[in-house]
Amino acid sequence: MNQPHEAVLSSAQPATAPLPVALVDALRALLGERFSTAASTRDHHGHGESYHASRPPAAVCFAQSTDEVSAIVKLCAQQRTPIIPFGAGTSLEGHVTAPHGGVCIDLGQMNAILNVRPADLDVTVQAGVTRQQLNTYLRDTGLFFPVDPGAECTLGGMAATRASGTNAVRYGTMRENVVSLTVVVASGEIIRTSGRARKSAAGYDLTRLFVGSEGTLGIITEVTLRLYGVPEATSVAICPFDDLKSAASAVATIIQMGIPVARVEFLDKYTIRATNQYSGTTYREVPTLFFEFHGSEREVHDQAALAQQIAEDHGASGFEWTADPQDRARIWKARHTVHYALQSMRPNGRIWSTDVCVPISALAGCIEETHRDIEAASFYVGIVGHVGDGNFHLGMVLDPDNPAEMAEAERINERLVHRAIAAEGTSTGEHGVGTGKIKYMELEHGGGVKLMHAIKRALDPDNLFNPGKILPSLDL
Amino acid sequence: MNQPHEAVLSSAQPATAPLPVALVDALRALLGERFSTAASTRDHHGHGESYHASRPPAAVCFAQSTDEVSAIVKLCAQQRTPIIPFGAGTSLEGHVTAPHGGVCIDLGQMNAILNVRPADLDVTVQAGVTRQQLNTYLRDTGLFFPVDPGAECTLGGMAATRASGTNAVRYGTMRENVVSLTVVVASGEIIRTSGRARKSAAGYDLTRLFVGSEGTLGIITEVTLRLYGVPEATSVAICPFDDLKSAASAVATIIQMGIPVARVEFLDKYTIRATNQYSGTTYREVPTLFFEFHGSEREVHDQAALAQQIAEDHGASGFEWTADPQDRARIWKARHTVHYALQSMRPNGRIWSTDVCVPISALAGCIEETHRDIEAASFYVGIVGHVGDGNFHLGMVLDPDNPAEMAEAERINERLVHRAIAAEGTSTGEHGVGTGKIKYMELEHGGGVKLMHAIKRALDPDNLFNPGKILPSLDL
Repeated sequence: MNQPHEAVLSSAQPATAPLPVALVDALRALLGERFSTAASTRDHHGHGESYHASRPPAAVCFAQSTDEVSAIVKLCAQQRTPIIPFGAGTSLEGHVTAPHGGVCIDLGQMNAILNVRPADLDVTVQAGVTRQQLNTYLRDTGLFFPVDPGAECTLGGMAATRASGTNAVRYGTMRENVVSLTVVVASGEIIRTSGRARKSAAGYDLTRLFVGSEGTLGIITEVTLRLYGVPEATSVAICPFDDLKSAASAVATIIQMGIPVARVEFLDKYTIRATNQYSGTTYREVPTLFFEFHGSEREVHDQAALAQQIAEDHGASGFEWTADPQDRARIWKARHTVHYALQSMRPNGRIWSTDVCVPISALAGCIEETHRDIEAASFYVGIVGHVGDGNFHLGMVLDPDNPAEMAEAERINERLVHRAIAAEGTSTGEHGVGTGKIKYMELEHGGGVKLMHAIKRALDPDNLFNPGKILPSLDL
Repeated sequence: MNQPHEAVLSSAQPATAPLPVALVDALRALLGERFSTAASTRDHHGHGESYHASRPPAAVCFAQSTDEVSAIVKLCAQQRTPIIPFGAGTSLEGHVTAPHGGVCIDLGQMNAILNVRPADLDVTVQAGVTRQQLNTYLRDTGLFFPVDPGAECTLGGMAATRASGTNAVRYGTMRENVVSLTVVVASGEIIRTSGRARKSAAGYDLTRLFVGSEGTLGIITEVTLRLYGVPEATSVAICPFDDLKSAASAVATIIQMGIPVARVEFLDKYTIRATNQYSGTTYREVPTLFFEFHGSEREVHDQAALAQQIAEDHGASGFEWTADPQDRARIWKARHTVHYALQSMRPNGRIWSTDVCVPISALAGCIEETHRDIEAASFYVGIVGHVGDGNFHLGMVLDPDNPAEMAEAERINERLVHRAIAAEGTSTGEHGVGTGKIKYMELEHGGGVKLMHAIKRALDPDNLFNPGKILPSLDL
């Protein structure tokens, strides 16, 4: 349990190594034109969003079934070739890069919605189904899937990174909303992590082990998810504050009071400014909370009234709420395009997006300290957060080819992560570890990292699955 | 990953083997009078509740701190001696038996409530704190811990078995309500499974791995739990039905409608009869639902009205609800003493308690089929369930010394488990695997059992922690 994983590392493919001819032939025989070594295809699969440098795989397989994924895994295992799963490529921490080369399995063509079960409030989908695709499909059923990270990402990718987003404060993250997974493991065997009962005490929680494992323990090919009834009524509210601390303190009070807000999003003045310029909105350029409330007409009214009272107790004066569907859509569109709004603040700018999550009592202090760091930064930075969970992000708008800016961003990120961990928080609330947060795993987990290593070695002894992700000493 | 664990098994202590003298001396030096080999102490620690035969450990250690647990684990590891954690001994599936002998660590003296944090809605306790102790302590804070399996069990034991109970339909199980754990692992090292943020995407979910691991991967010594505000209003309702199917169908509809019931318990006519005799109640001896509603005065009223309407749509006529605290207490006391009520139906009877959990759409059918089995049984059997989760129990009142009755109970249990798994449910919703459900693990998990074995070997290579539990080929 204590030895590093050297023997395995030395057998991994270097980044530029071509695949063994026998493997290429076998994959081409299996997949035909759905196997590609074209440079453009490889390049497209070598990176997510955010600032991480592209590391293309040696080839890309476009799988169409769990059985095909199993066959690909068996072929790659014979040649000890790394396997990197790829959904929609919206990752923010380098999850889909191929630092050890190998074969990317693109699951985007596995986009069938297999079974909607309204009576059980669950659905089974192939891993390549996106959350918008699912919710569009569900439109006439009165049901919806709430986990919403903003991007047009796949549900398999969301399970693999334990994604969450704006609705998590009320409905939970992928941790709470994945019922069961179909996974191809290192032997190529296909397993199902659990049945569909709402709870079980029958052995180790394999579902939760694969949720958030970022493709390092197996390839998720099908996902069973919990569904919820579309609320009878929905309203949204916007509330500007004079200062950061008042906004964050108001959120803490709302959570402590147990008000079941569906969304409570924080945007700092820099993010509001970028949003106004990008989306044509005219919000006051001050720290602002965006709320959404779900329930019956009366519940929604009561929740909004309570939130308004608490906000005003914290000095807010401009609480405005609306149930108009067009107003709601406009507000959330502005919120969901924050990434691009920030990016537009600088020609050819790229976003270094980082997130942390802290206990709610530490939120105001952490945001204030972080704000001081970004006030001193040489580039534009916005803070935006799913603050009901204590989760907030920095979007640093920089030039990845400028080493001084990258070093400065690294320092800001490091101070942020240390601050969050010192508050008993986490180095990432929802973006995941990928390659970007590996350096903080020891600080956050201490001896727990050894357990994670032991689990990785036990389930993937040849280090085939997404090598170089999550775990420090397995990295290059 | 595929070899059985033979080398380890052969080094395990036979059940009656005394401990090595060096280990006895070292443990006595460490713990003084808190180390015992007295027969009465060993006997007390060799069994839980329910029907499983006692298998006493060779000695019992009464630990008072995480550091002491770490020291005990290190000493036992040196001698390859099994270690069995013990909370309150309320287990129903043989979790605390010592089929391989070894040392029991009783955590009952680790009963300090370490830190209540109202602002973060969480609390950290030592593993030996019971749920009633915690809720009594919290009484003046306006907060409570909802997970309620009925028995006076420890929170460490509840985490270890992934317990749930009556409130889980609204508040979730230990899976959802454990924030973080302190665990002594096989090396004796003390790890913390995570920080206290409400969500994290930083690596494998060690918390969820230890929740439900039944002491087979490490010893849980501290537990951080989510707390909730005591609801402004609470009401309860009782609703008799003419038949099982109508009652179960009404529950399914209530869940599908998204009514946030806090509790919805099913008692069949046999359980009602036993309750009437034991608790002096005068309920109609028909299938009956017990409800509890939490919220504001208005919400509680609205929820009860909706539930009543649905129940009446399913043919119920006697829906009665009350907010009177004494009525509520009387109703839940009757519900919580069902185990003893059933036991009292036969002089010197013991309860074989078994539970399964199925998707809600399969609940009515599974309960009906199970009812036919128990109508044909030669002994008294009651069905009782946390049916909002699809979870129900059989309490079979039998004589464990009668082989014919034990064989008959085994057949009923086996049919129940097969029925649940065929419906994509689980062999145990909340009691856990222990020794009693091991035989169903392959049926339920297929290839997943190999992964569980691999995890067990990775984290506990010498099979020290609670050997003979959960995993089939690690058993004697």
